[in-house]
Amino acid sequence: MIVILRKNPEQRQLENLIQWLKSLNLDVHLSVGETSIILGLIGDTSSVDIDLIRALDIVEDVKRVQEPYKNANRKFHPDDTIIEITADVKIGGGNKVMMAGPCSVESIDQICEVARRVKAAGAEILRGGAFKPRTSPYAFQGLGETGINYLLEAKKQTGLPIVTELMNISQLPLFDEIDIIQIGARNMQNYDLLKEMGHCGKPVLLKRGLANTLEELLMSAEYIMANGNQRVMLCERGIRTFETAMRNTLDLAAVPLLKDLSHLPVIVDPSHATGIAKLVKPMAMAAIAAGADGLIIEVHNDPPHALCDGAQSLTPEAFDVVAACVKNLIPLSFHW
Amino acid sequence: MIVILRKNPEQRQLENLIQWLKSLNLDVHLSVGETSIILGLIGDTSSVDIDLIRALDIVEDVKRVQEPYKNANRKFHPDDTIIEITADVKIGGGNKVMMAGPCSVESIDQICEVARRVKAAGAEILRGGAFKPRTSPYAFQGLGETGINYLLEAKKQTGLPIVTELMNISQLPLFDEIDIIQIGARNMQNYDLLKEMGHCGKPVLLKRGLANTLEELLMSAEYIMANGNQRVMLCERGIRTFETAMRNTLDLAAVPLLKDLSHLPVIVDPSHATGIAKLVKPMAMAAIAAGADGLIIEVHNDPPHALCDGAQSLTPEAFDVVAACVKNLIPLSFHW
Amino acid sequence: MIVILRKNPEQRQLENLIQWLKSLNLDVHLSVGETSIILGLIGDTSSVDIDLIRALDIVEDVKRVQEPYKNANRKFHPDDTIIEITADVKIGGGNKVMMAGPCSVESIDQICEVARRVKAAGAEILRGGAFKPRTSPYAFQGLGETGINYLLEAKKQTGLPIVTELMNISQLPLFDEIDIIQIGARNMQNYDLLKEMGHCGKPVLLKRGLANTLEELLMSAEYIMANGNQRVMLCERGIRTFETAMRNTLDLAAVPLLKDLSHLPVIVDPSHATGIAKLVKPMAMAAIAAGADGLIIEVHNDPPHALCDGAQSLTPEAFDVVAACVKNLIPLSFHW
Amino acid sequence: MIVILRKNPEQRQLENLIQWLKSLNLDVHLSVGETSIILGLIGDTSSVDIDLIRALDIVEDVKRVQEPYKNANRKFHPDDTIIEITADVKIGGGNKVMMAGPCSVESIDQICEVARRVKAAGAEILRGGAFKPRTSPYAFQGLGETGINYLLEAKKQTGLPIVTELMNISQLPLFDEIDIIQIGARNMQNYDLLKEMGHCGKPVLLKRGLANTLEELLMSAEYIMANGNQRVMLCERGIRTFETAMRNTLDLAAVPLLKDLSHLPVIVDPSHATGIAKLVKPMAMAAIAAGADGLIIEVHNDPPHALCDGAQSLTPEAFDVVAACVKNLIPLSFHW
Repeated sequence: MIVILRKNPEQRQLENLIQWLKSLNLDVHLSVGETSIILGLIGDTSSVDIDLIRALDIVEDVKRVQEPYKNANRKFHPDDTIIEITADVKIGGGNKVMMAGPCSVESIDQICEVARRVKAAGAEILRGGAFKPRTSPYAFQGLGETGINYLLEAKKQTGLPIVTELMNISQLPLFDEIDIIQIGARNMQNYDLLKEMGHCGKPVLLKRGLANTLEELLMSAEYIMANGNQRVMLCERGIRTFETAMRNTLDLAAVPLLKDLSHLPVIVDPSHATGIAKLVKPMAMAAIAAGADGLIIEVHNDPPHALCDGAQSLTPEAFDVVAACVKNLIPLSFHW
Repeated sequence: MIVILRKNPEQRQLENLIQWLKSLNLDVHLSVGETSIILGLIGDTSSVDIDLIRALDIVEDVKRVQEPYKNANRKFHPDDTIIEITADVKIGGGNKVMMAGPCSVESIDQICEVARRVKAAGAEILRGGAFKPRTSPYAFQGLGETGINYLLEAKKQTGLPIVTELMNISQLPLFDEIDIIQIGARNMQNYDLLKEMGHCGKPVLLKRGLANTLEELLMSAEYIMANGNQRVMLCERGIRTFETAMRNTLDLAAVPLLKDLSHLPVIVDPSHATGIAKLVKPMAMAAIAAGADGLIIEVHNDPPHALCDGAQSLTPEAFDVVAACVKNLIPLSFHW
Repeated sequence: MIVILRKNPEQRQLENLIQWLKSLNLDVHLSVGETSIILGLIGDTSSVDIDLIRALDIVEDVKRVQEPYKNANRKFHPDDTIIEITADVKIGGGNKVMMAGPCSVESIDQICEVARRVKAAGAEILRGGAFKPRTSPYAFQGLGETGINYLLEAKKQTGLPIVTELMNISQLPLFDEIDIIQIGARNMQNYDLLKEMGHCGKPVLLKRGLANTLEELLMSAEYIMANGNQRVMLCERGIRTFETAMRNTLDLAAVPLLKDLSHLPVIVDPSHATGIAKLVKPMAMAAIAAGADGLIIEVHNDPPHALCDGAQSLTPEAFDVVAACVKNLIPLSFHW
Repeated sequence: MIVILRKNPEQRQLENLIQWLKSLNLDVHLSVGETSIILGLIGDTSSVDIDLIRALDIVEDVKRVQEPYKNANRKFHPDDTIIEITADVKIGGGNKVMMAGPCSVESIDQICEVARRVKAAGAEILRGGAFKPRTSPYAFQGLGETGINYLLEAKKQTGLPIVTELMNISQLPLFDEIDIIQIGARNMQNYDLLKEMGHCGKPVLLKRGLANTLEELLMSAEYIMANGNQRVMLCERGIRTFETAMRNTLDLAAVPLLKDLSHLPVIVDPSHATGIAKLVKPMAMAAIAAGADGLIIEVHNDPPHALCDGAQSLTPEAFDVVAACVKNLIPLSFHW
């Protein structure tokens, strides 16, 4: 960590600052220049409160040299984390995974039928929302507990493990037999929820917030890991930019960068990122080509009121094609 | 609401769609052009699920004509909402309010001393964080329940009502004597928390999320209002952009625009928005000039380890100046 | 085009507006609802000045139904544009192209050596900057005319066609033997330059501006095409967002979306987009997987002062690997 | 400037780097830590090519401590720049200025009538576009030379100095009697144009690009100043963000920050920033309250086809009110 001081600091303040930094078990290197003084802090700075230092009168700026996360940091854990969901389904370390299913669980028939279809196409994990975060209080908020029960029935019928979103701590008892807990983009910095995820002992799929940096995503993973749960997957699902042609801007360079910074698996959600069905296949292919450890894709079999043959979430038929293409691409991606 | 159809829709699909829209109590106007067909939906569309329609195969795009919020909409409630905090302190409808206090409650002495100072300078509400959302799990997370008790002691000593942040529903019992509950930017779309705020019966200060549009802010207010609580204040505190010279970009045009769209009071937080102490005064003045109903400003009296004379949150002395300037500006602002 | 009127417009104004719209050869469909009146405009609206209509007192909003570009629009030109650079090098319509070379031309030896190396690795076009747009007036601004001559010498030695940036119209006479003129991101909306490109008769590589939408990119292509030059390539090179971990955010979903909206070839620049050498390979692969018609990649052989073995632009050795991987991926991409 | 090296650099490379930095007349301070080595560079680093250093293999990151601009930097020129337009009209150093006029010059009657009206209301400079940058090649591109002549006629009739946009160097001869040359947002990084502005000897109003940081704006001013012209005004006119409720997001905190970083006058354009007529007054007031040295406001007297009584640019009547309010606010703003 580097602390840049304002010009001509009071000597007493400077000494106090250095004294205090040393009391945090840091070595302090002083460089005195013509227009500024620089302090180099050597040691473990991950628990230093950077805002506190930046707030000091004599400080002009503070710049980190080291990442502020440890558990999630590849420097300290060079090997890929591999998360075992079942005996057959592993994620990370070269194990690529396909998660698929409807946006919302709507009925027992719908979810079981989609489960069968995506399993047949090669998906290894079933997704589906029982608790739905909706911008409008007047929109459908999900089936809740009933939706969880339908998902568990689909799991029983197909053997597919389940990933579904948890929106608040009080819902946790319902998630006992759920295999992966999803923390949605809007809750990426709901720190109490993250701490609870640290204690829950289940794999967590942590979605990047719409306006969150990769460092913040890793810090949110760090919240879970520092509280005891190392089984975290990071999910890129698009960020908010000025571009309005797609719902969000899928940040695929995040994939190799996150894998460089961290040992955690990285999953890509091309459906929510783009909001456009015809972009799902090219973005799924691109995500695999960029090194993603898995995909999570929306598939829907029950067009509302039979009006649509191919809605923005894929039909099972369209998903068959995506899954087949991805399956062909994966083995090649190991040779790059 | 306007539904733009793809070219040459199947006749059966088109009829099904129109039938279904009519079943939602909407009048449907059909315009057939050379390259597209347009449906104009007339009636109350606020509870229509726009994503569902957009997902239909025969639909190219859907555009709203009316705002999707009702309770928060000035069209349906032309008069300004006035929120009475105490017999003396009202917010909205021409009543301007100054909230001030430290970022975090640190000790009983600190909070009581700041309370006295900001009251003397003219602040009418004391702010201070007991539960702190922090990006890093290793940073200070606030004093929690103890912090709440210190705030209540400061209220007892000075008579100032208290605004402080609630991060999760389980903390609610501690907020019995708190006057205004703050929902932080990171929780602006924590919908379960918003619903609970609808039931809690207390005034709510709802901060805009870093990547949230004004419409989304109003929809989050709508969550609280639709669940029974009409006493909501909107707070502009900066949005995330590419600019890195300030912490966030304070969107002051949001003030007159929100006041045009909605009857709810609009508060501005220049401290968090900019993160730079010397910008607080000009931005406070600008906010009042733009028509804000109040300000929430960070004031700190306990420079850490006596190192700083003027940290990024204002000293009480600096706040005296800001408060005096604002006090002079407010009466003028009514003549514009 | 849809015009949404304010509530209760004056009858005289409404009639004037309709009259005027009809004078533009548009059919006007009137839908009168409870809370608003909607005009549907049928006909060729691409030359209607949307801002003018939006500025009218009685108009609340205007929404386009059709794209405002024609020449660049796939709806009117369903077949892929194929741009023939030389007898051997074609771009678009399934012809994938690799452009490579240094950021700046620095010396005759450097550019010729890089040209040989990238040609050996499979590149078909040589890139290199002679005129360099630099944020700082104190930074190296390129070799200018000398740089152009060095590029032409490299072309002579290797046979590789050249793509290089033109920054202003007065430089055009120097570009006689240049094969592709690059318009940089900062000049994407330099309309006088675009018009000149319409007259110049050479293929143009048009880079997306850092804050420009895809529609604006297509409108800038339209400037060139409407002025007579149909040989335009669109280049995605990253947009500016709040994320600071990479230089820009590469928007790969732009690739399939642009190819859906337009018949023009789409090229991806992973080097400038990310600014990080180790991200070039995964992003190059992802771009091809997403359907890009080509890549433009920075390769540098002359590490400044021999200090660096692998700078942020790739070494020729690293490029050999990227080019080989891309070459293997391309034939597969046709089967998806 | 601080250079952070990768772990365990090769000794030879490190020595080469230090040697080279010293050859640039910099002192180099070496701090060796457990996990990284830091070089502090002391001396004039404004002409050091930061990208070149960052590109070195052994370098992990480079961070500036000093601003990369000199001429525009308040540290080196503590006093406000005052730009004298005429004997009566000065800008900066406490001299506030109001510029007003139509978006485009449309006819001799229109521009002269608006000129009279805005002069009567208190405007001191007439704005109006003769060359118009338009997103669409099919939209009105301005009257060009004729528009310039109309502006000069309005100047003759009213005595108001003129500010108007120059889009390319070849138009410069037409600007002989123009008082202030405006460089538009889309040309903020058109470096050849900026260099020419350095030689032209006229005051320049430099508009911030839609995706440009304040540092980049100052660097573009530096281009003009380093080429010999110190009379530059900076203009904040909104940046591009995810928010779609306004045309752009007006960044008013830029005003005090720019005035802190630089001695140049700062002008605010509330009309283009918001694109909404009713936001112009509150944002004009807020800009003055934030410390702006002037405003540039759109006023239009010729509603197209008599359809609109109050378009999005203000009518002269509405401008009368804005100008009167601003006039009242200005003297107060000196006492804050």
